[in-house]
Amino acid sequence: MDARIEQIHSPSDLKRLSRRELSEYCVALRTCIIETVTQTGGHLASALGAVELAVALHYVFDAPKDKILWDVGHQAYVHKLITGRADRFASLRTNGGISGFPKMSESEYDAFTMGHASTSLSVGLGYVRARDRLKQDYQVVSVIGDGALTGGMAFEALNDIGAYGAKMLIVLNDNKMSISQNVGAMSKYLNKLRVSKRYSKLKSTVKKGVLGIPLFGQNIYKALGKTKDGLRAVLQQNKMFEQMGIRYFGPIDGHDLSDLISTLSRIKEETGPVLLHIVTEKGKGDPNAQSDPSHFHGVSPSSAAQENTFSSVVSDFLCQEAEKDERITAITAAMAYGTGLDKFSERFPDRFCDVGIAEEHAVTLSAAMAAGGLKPYFAVYSTFLQRGFDQILHDVCINKLPVTFLIDRAGAVGSDGVTHQGIYDLSYLLPIPNMTVLTPKDGNELRGMLEFSLTFNGPLAIRYPKSYTDNAPCSLIDYGKWEKVRNEKSSVTILAAGNRALQAAMGTKGASIVNARFIKPLDAEMLSSLNKENTLLITVEDNALCGGFGEAVLSYVSHSTKIGAKVQRIGYEDAFLDNYSVSDSLQAAGITTQNLQSIIDSFTAKE
Amino acid sequence: MDARIEQIHSPSDLKRLSRRELSEYCVALRTCIIETVTQTGGHLASALGAVELAVALHYVFDAPKDKILWDVGHQAYVHKLITGRADRFASLRTNGGISGFPKMSESEYDAFTMGHASTSLSVGLGYVRARDRLKQDYQVVSVIGDGALTGGMAFEALNDIGAYGAKMLIVLNDNKMSISQNVGAMSKYLNKLRVSKRYSKLKSTVKKGVLGIPLFGQNIYKALGKTKDGLRAVLQQNKMFEQMGIRYFGPIDGHDLSDLISTLSRIKEETGPVLLHIVTEKGKGDPNAQSDPSHFHGVSPSSAAQENTFSSVVSDFLCQEAEKDERITAITAAMAYGTGLDKFSERFPDRFCDVGIAEEHAVTLSAAMAAGGLKPYFAVYSTFLQRGFDQILHDVCINKLPVTFLIDRAGAVGSDGVTHQGIYDLSYLLPIPNMTVLTPKDGNELRGMLEFSLTFNGPLAIRYPKSYTDNAPCSLIDYGKWEKVRNEKSSVTILAAGNRALQAAMGTKGASIVNARFIKPLDAEMLSSLNKENTLLITVEDNALCGGFGEAVLSYVSHSTKIGAKVQRIGYEDAFLDNYSVSDSLQAAGITTQNLQSIIDSFTAKE
Repeated sequence: MDARIEQIHSPSDLKRLSRRELSEYCVALRTCIIETVTQTGGHLASALGAVELAVALHYVFDAPKDKILWDVGHQAYVHKLITGRADRFASLRTNGGISGFPKMSESEYDAFTMGHASTSLSVGLGYVRARDRLKQDYQVVSVIGDGALTGGMAFEALNDIGAYGAKMLIVLNDNKMSISQNVGAMSKYLNKLRVSKRYSKLKSTVKKGVLGIPLFGQNIYKALGKTKDGLRAVLQQNKMFEQMGIRYFGPIDGHDLSDLISTLSRIKEETGPVLLHIVTEKGKGDPNAQSDPSHFHGVSPSSAAQENTFSSVVSDFLCQEAEKDERITAITAAMAYGTGLDKFSERFPDRFCDVGIAEEHAVTLSAAMAAGGLKPYFAVYSTFLQRGFDQILHDVCINKLPVTFLIDRAGAVGSDGVTHQGIYDLSYLLPIPNMTVLTPKDGNELRGMLEFSLTFNGPLAIRYPKSYTDNAPCSLIDYGKWEKVRNEKSSVTILAAGNRALQAAMGTKGASIVNARFIKPLDAEMLSSLNKENTLLITVEDNALCGGFGEAVLSYVSHSTKIGAKVQRIGYEDAFLDNYSVSDSLQAAGITTQNLQSIIDSFTAKE
Repeated sequence: MDARIEQIHSPSDLKRLSRRELSEYCVALRTCIIETVTQTGGHLASALGAVELAVALHYVFDAPKDKILWDVGHQAYVHKLITGRADRFASLRTNGGISGFPKMSESEYDAFTMGHASTSLSVGLGYVRARDRLKQDYQVVSVIGDGALTGGMAFEALNDIGAYGAKMLIVLNDNKMSISQNVGAMSKYLNKLRVSKRYSKLKSTVKKGVLGIPLFGQNIYKALGKTKDGLRAVLQQNKMFEQMGIRYFGPIDGHDLSDLISTLSRIKEETGPVLLHIVTEKGKGDPNAQSDPSHFHGVSPSSAAQENTFSSVVSDFLCQEAEKDERITAITAAMAYGTGLDKFSERFPDRFCDVGIAEEHAVTLSAAMAAGGLKPYFAVYSTFLQRGFDQILHDVCINKLPVTFLIDRAGAVGSDGVTHQGIYDLSYLLPIPNMTVLTPKDGNELRGMLEFSLTFNGPLAIRYPKSYTDNAPCSLIDYGKWEKVRNEKSSVTILAAGNRALQAAMGTKGASIVNARFIKPLDAEMLSSLNKENTLLITVEDNALCGGFGEAVLSYVSHSTKIGAKVQRIGYEDAFLDNYSVSDSLQAAGITTQNLQSIIDSFTAKE
């Protein structure tokens, strides 16, 4: 590793460097990040965009006393390198290594655990209120991207921050795109701000000019200058933040280290809430990431094998069917690439909605589109759909509207770690009445399920992990019916929910195997026929046990009056899955052939 | 009923009235609503505030072809009276009667089911997109209050509406307060708009004046007038909506029927998204409701008995403990009255946060306050906490932060109906690791649980319905321990979760009864001792069966290797609880002494 990086063990080391050394350090940081992330995988483009910002913040502020909060956390790699984690940086996103996101349990410099977007302003204000209440003295800085600013909870927090009025710094890291392309009115608004840098030169002359108008001059100036800096605000067209009670500064170049340091040093003395708008480039310093940052948003390790992704099945299917059915519409919350909707967005721009990082709106929008006669498909990561729970229940399911949720990255997610695990969706979807939940065993079956969705007239969720390996022929998807994939003369039957569960099951011997395609409703007929005394049903799911598939099976079986099958449930125990590898996660939960085999053997041995 | 109300069966009847008759109709509507709601209970103040608006909208637009969407729905009583439901209006909020909220299944005039706040803009845009895509021709009007505008998903939708740019009308019904007092920067901003009515007179003179400035004139006007109506926007300081791409009109008096009708007729011809800002008075026409609209927000039927509310226990406890412990802070999302925090807010204004209708922010704010050393209590209705699911998991529980959730209106809620049932909280809280969930049997026990919370150092949820009847002495709350309340020599034990379950159980004979205070973690020791062959455990909960307490007990029992107790679960089946009476809801679910007795008798008869 570069000596310039090794020599920085904490922000105090940083403060000893000259401006020139700081600049050289930034160069070294970029190289280090590109080299490491190419190996480990990770969020390259965002991290490269925030190099100077992280250096400047740690130079000007005093972490860990001061709280520096990185929204989403994609951009916090430099923060980690500065705060004593350089020697472990190569272990990024691996078990035993460091997380790809700020994590309270990892370092005192990580003032809060980040992962999901748009939380940093609420977190910042929580610290500010605690500080003021307990009469402590520290600064709070929330760094939020323009993408995360489209999330509703960021607005809820801005509303509260402006009203509360206490000292707090918001750095708006405006990289002119969120994860996919930038969307929404907020983005247009920020774009306007970017082109209005000429304020400072104009200010005094204009004031003089306006005051010079006979009769009206004083009135206009009063109207324009209602707040102390009204004129400045008006001319910059940047009233939005100021109108909420948050003083606005910027925009400044987020890669100009000197300007950043001097601006931050100055506004750190402000007494109320302040927003500094900086403009950065995603992928700065890496020609590839810079020219196509969407594709470089999340980078896979260089060693990663080519995978069959479920999202490519979604992509092919929606593009094909949209040609025939004009009702088909696709919705994403800033994840067009990750969910496979990028191709659709190019071919059918009118029928594609990227609403920004706004899952709540996305769900209810989809519900109303369905009410209005469209056939909406909302493609979303399992962990992010948690944001739409209330809307799924209240807007989609009470009204039984035919919205199809394509839930990607369900189950263990590997290197994104604890904040991004997709292992709760079955638990939060199954209690919702009128919901139908499916999980495919492979790509062909996902295609079959998508075909099923075309004529299905109600809320439908299809959940699947990122990728699959083998592809078997798909039998017809029949509502509420499971598929027997192996019939053995055995007292043990494995009920496998989804791809990974079925893969583990297929390696075993001496048990029948069912592909439990429908998680809700269960196949009551098949389950009833399997529910016999002295038999064992093993449920396997890539989901939390609590509230999951196995509990649903158990409930069904226990409801029967006769003495029936014993149910053994395999899935994630009631603890956060703080694990950076999919296979290790599956192993820990016992979703392995070996574990299933030992359960089968031990049951059959007793007979 | 007043003949003027009886004669209106649909909006087309309305269109035949003269302006004078329309005004008289408004007077009659007010009387009818006051008389009815005094009998039935309901949302009096909001409904009275929107009388003229509802009449004007139905006069100008053509529902049901045009979609009129009432955010939250509190204010839609007049809409119901106009659209053929006058004869059934006395059955408001009762079984077999009409819902207190717009409901798709009730009338074709109810274009969407409303209940939770801040959804109407997303719904409106969904209809707009469907209309445009399917080349249909209708208008979409979303009526949203200033309170609901503080909800993040409203902002997410505004962002999308502004960017999409299609024809849609937003009516901002600004009654200068949401459910509790108005909060946040948005409220301050709206207040500024209200005092700036002088635009139209100023406009032309100012333009002339500015252009008259030598040298600078043209430039300033260009800077001010970037959009077509830039100058107007600048002078009115109302740039926020315009900057998002939404044309702003107003503010106008929302009780001036003529002005409303002429303004709506005019702006209905606009081609893009438009916001009309109207100012109304909550409770208009009822001296009581007008002077204290917070207390008249939700009105109980005049026949309602005085109740012991759990919220008053919360109120007394927090006020008392806050004197001793400066870390105690209370948070509400616009429900200070309903949750019992009004007294606290008066006594400790610095330690009370009303964040607006912003549950997402409220949860994460609480998390960070706890991280910063405070002891936050977030008091919230069960149904509204659904909005904070992701934040509970991601921000509170991953970090094991000591936030206490005081979950009011848990279980069946009665007259608010299907959109407000609090029967899902156990299902969505139990799968979250690190969460502890309690439910008290009565007021004394809630007090005991609150005392327990003072020293408990982790995420804690206490859920309870609105009220309780009897109060027993409370034994010490010990982590994870249940309380035996009746010990009988019987093979049947009732495990009762919370007040209503326990009340039903106490009337039975011939079974032991356990007060299952801790829903998570379960009392493993007691459960293990009860788990014997040929015994029956009856779990009773005022929650959905799926993912609830009973499933947790069943999972525990089934995990045991020995042949154990049979578990019979009582709670809500997997269907939306479309029921306007608490006792009917409990009856339907079998949470009654009679049902429990018959289960006990039938099991013991077999022995």
